[in-house]
Amino acid sequence: MSTTTLPISRARVIGTGLLGTSIALGLREHAVEVDLEDSSPSRLRLAEDYGAGQAVTPATPATPDPDLVVVATPPDVTAAVVSDAVNRFPEAVVMDVASVKNAIVESVADTTGRFVPTHPMAGRERGGPTAARVDLFTGRPWVVCAEDSPASGIVRQLVAALGGFAVSMTPEEHDRAVAVLSHLPQVVSSSVAAELISADAAWLELAGGGVRDVTRIAGSDPELWAQILEGNHAAVADVVQTVADRLSAVAGALREVDAPGSRTTLHETLRAGRDGVSALPGKHGSAERYVTQIVVIDDRPGQLAALLSDVGELGVNLEDMSLEHSPGAPVGFVELAIAPEAAETLRDGLSTKGWRVSGEAQ
Amino acid sequence: MSTTTLPISRARVIGTGLLGTSIALGLREHAVEVDLEDSSPSRLRLAEDYGAGQAVTPATPATPDPDLVVVATPPDVTAAVVSDAVNRFPEAVVMDVASVKNAIVESVADTTGRFVPTHPMAGRERGGPTAARVDLFTGRPWVVCAEDSPASGIVRQLVAALGGFAVSMTPEEHDRAVAVLSHLPQVVSSSVAAELISADAAWLELAGGGVRDVTRIAGSDPELWAQILEGNHAAVADVVQTVADRLSAVAGALREVDAPGSRTTLHETLRAGRDGVSALPGKHGSAERYVTQIVVIDDRPGQLAALLSDVGELGVNLEDMSLEHSPGAPVGFVELAIAPEAAETLRDGLSTKGWRVSGEAQ
Repeated sequence: MSTTTLPISRARVIGTGLLGTSIALGLREHAVEVDLEDSSPSRLRLAEDYGAGQAVTPATPATPDPDLVVVATPPDVTAAVVSDAVNRFPEAVVMDVASVKNAIVESVADTTGRFVPTHPMAGRERGGPTAARVDLFTGRPWVVCAEDSPASGIVRQLVAALGGFAVSMTPEEHDRAVAVLSHLPQVVSSSVAAELISADAAWLELAGGGVRDVTRIAGSDPELWAQILEGNHAAVADVVQTVADRLSAVAGALREVDAPGSRTTLHETLRAGRDGVSALPGKHGSAERYVTQIVVIDDRPGQLAALLSDVGELGVNLEDMSLEHSPGAPVGFVELAIAPEAAETLRDGLSTKGWRVSGEAQ
Repeated sequence: MSTTTLPISRARVIGTGLLGTSIALGLREHAVEVDLEDSSPSRLRLAEDYGAGQAVTPATPATPDPDLVVVATPPDVTAAVVSDAVNRFPEAVVMDVASVKNAIVESVADTTGRFVPTHPMAGRERGGPTAARVDLFTGRPWVVCAEDSPASGIVRQLVAALGGFAVSMTPEEHDRAVAVLSHLPQVVSSSVAAELISADAAWLELAGGGVRDVTRIAGSDPELWAQILEGNHAAVADVVQTVADRLSAVAGALREVDAPGSRTTLHETLRAGRDGVSALPGKHGSAERYVTQIVVIDDRPGQLAALLSDVGELGVNLEDMSLEHSPGAPVGFVELAIAPEAAETLRDGLSTKGWRVSGEAQ
């Protein structure tokens, strides 16, 4: 991460969970002094140990006022903490990072122009300061719900400095977008995963990549998510009901599979799903620009290094890579994602060097 | 893959899609002669070119009868093809690999004891012979719906030879299990992805890992899946209706978020989802045995090779690895999964060599 100069010399991060600590780490890389606050002393100490800044508690001697306050608390207290921060620090820009925006904006009712509501589209299933990563925002959209102003300009510079890119939306538009793109998938994932509780252990052994992918985010923090859903309840209710109705229609078609229209319902749902998923931008906005080659390697130390050394010698830059390896299997499979124009060079070059390469046709 | 001796010298694979071609490739590695049949001449030629066996068409001179017939056709014709194969080859064991079992078993009504219904729990979103992989079944469960018998014994040997492990279930139990573990996630994934069709392009830019995971399998073949759902319609209808009702309850709770019981509904759904996903066995049944270390690398050729060369020098064996890289970003992140006892060696060793390493606390 390159160090650009931010027009901030001192920041206060309130709430040292995943987002707050990640932002604090990023600010530190840009030579900003960071004061940390958290209602949990143990979380606060962890964030301080991680190098995110200095802890501020009621026992701390008075510290200079910050230029920027980042409110990264749970969503149900965000509005109150923002309002308080606007009052406590009369010169500071105050931003929040909560997953819902409209309810917070309405509740804060800021008249100073110093409050900038934002939402970085970044996260992990695990939370807390120890999960923080300075790169959490790299290449990720970061919604900023504010008109151009001195305050929002500073926030946009912070977003860019932390590797993200600012996306402007009204609070209402943000909330409707995340209802579909984030909150609906969470509710659905949880609802499918709930079915696994009553499944036989023998059945669960059959679980493959499909059910794992669909239920992965069901592992997220229930308390946090209950607050998020409540904070965007109207928009989420609509889209969850739409999916519930669609699933009811599919269930009805399956019960009466020979009834007129039943097969049409099944086909249309599956086709609409395929069309929908293809509407998503490519991975990192660009996966379609790459092709994949699969190389078989033996499962022993040094094999992967030897392969990648050969890839480097061929002058081919890897865009992405993953290793598939089942423990106990004598071989692994390395998927190399590369620019299409490099595919032939890579395939021929690696084959010549004795690697077993198979291109992966779509 | 080690070459064990199978009690089969000649096999016929009918249907050269992903599963049929992958099985054929596996049989060839065990020195089995493989004849291939497919209703599509182009698919058949691709499988032959891939080295899966010799194509058999009406124009082919008579070939010796096989000891084993693998029926790997779409599910809606599987029963008919199995019945035909049992008649055509009166000495052969006949197995199918379709995703539904009860309807096929009832339709075939085999009296010879030579038909063995099976379902390998392995697949990919992409299909066809070019997606075939000899390792497709490595470490994966493969359901065998037959009592112990000479025929099922041969099939179990084949499953083991191809790297899978046989799981015994009745056809009814199989169908109820996959309704929950496979067919429900597909229907739900498609239904969520269908919501993306009407979403603004600006909204879709906000898509993160959650919605991508939930909708990934929505990209699967709609025609194939319509057949699978139809072949297991009663069991799938039940579980899809259960999830539809749960989502309706959540939508109702969100509409009336202050009504008595609404918050309880939200919390219970989210908590049940977290409990359910934690019931799934670990990745490859073993992910919990590994720990992850994250290393930051510069985005230029040779960096990954240099890193992995250093890992090899430390004598640490990688269990899994993935690269996170956003195009345009100056750095990438390599996640190294290793045995817990190697974590300190790896972290300290790489740090000494100048790499930036961060452990990932759970």
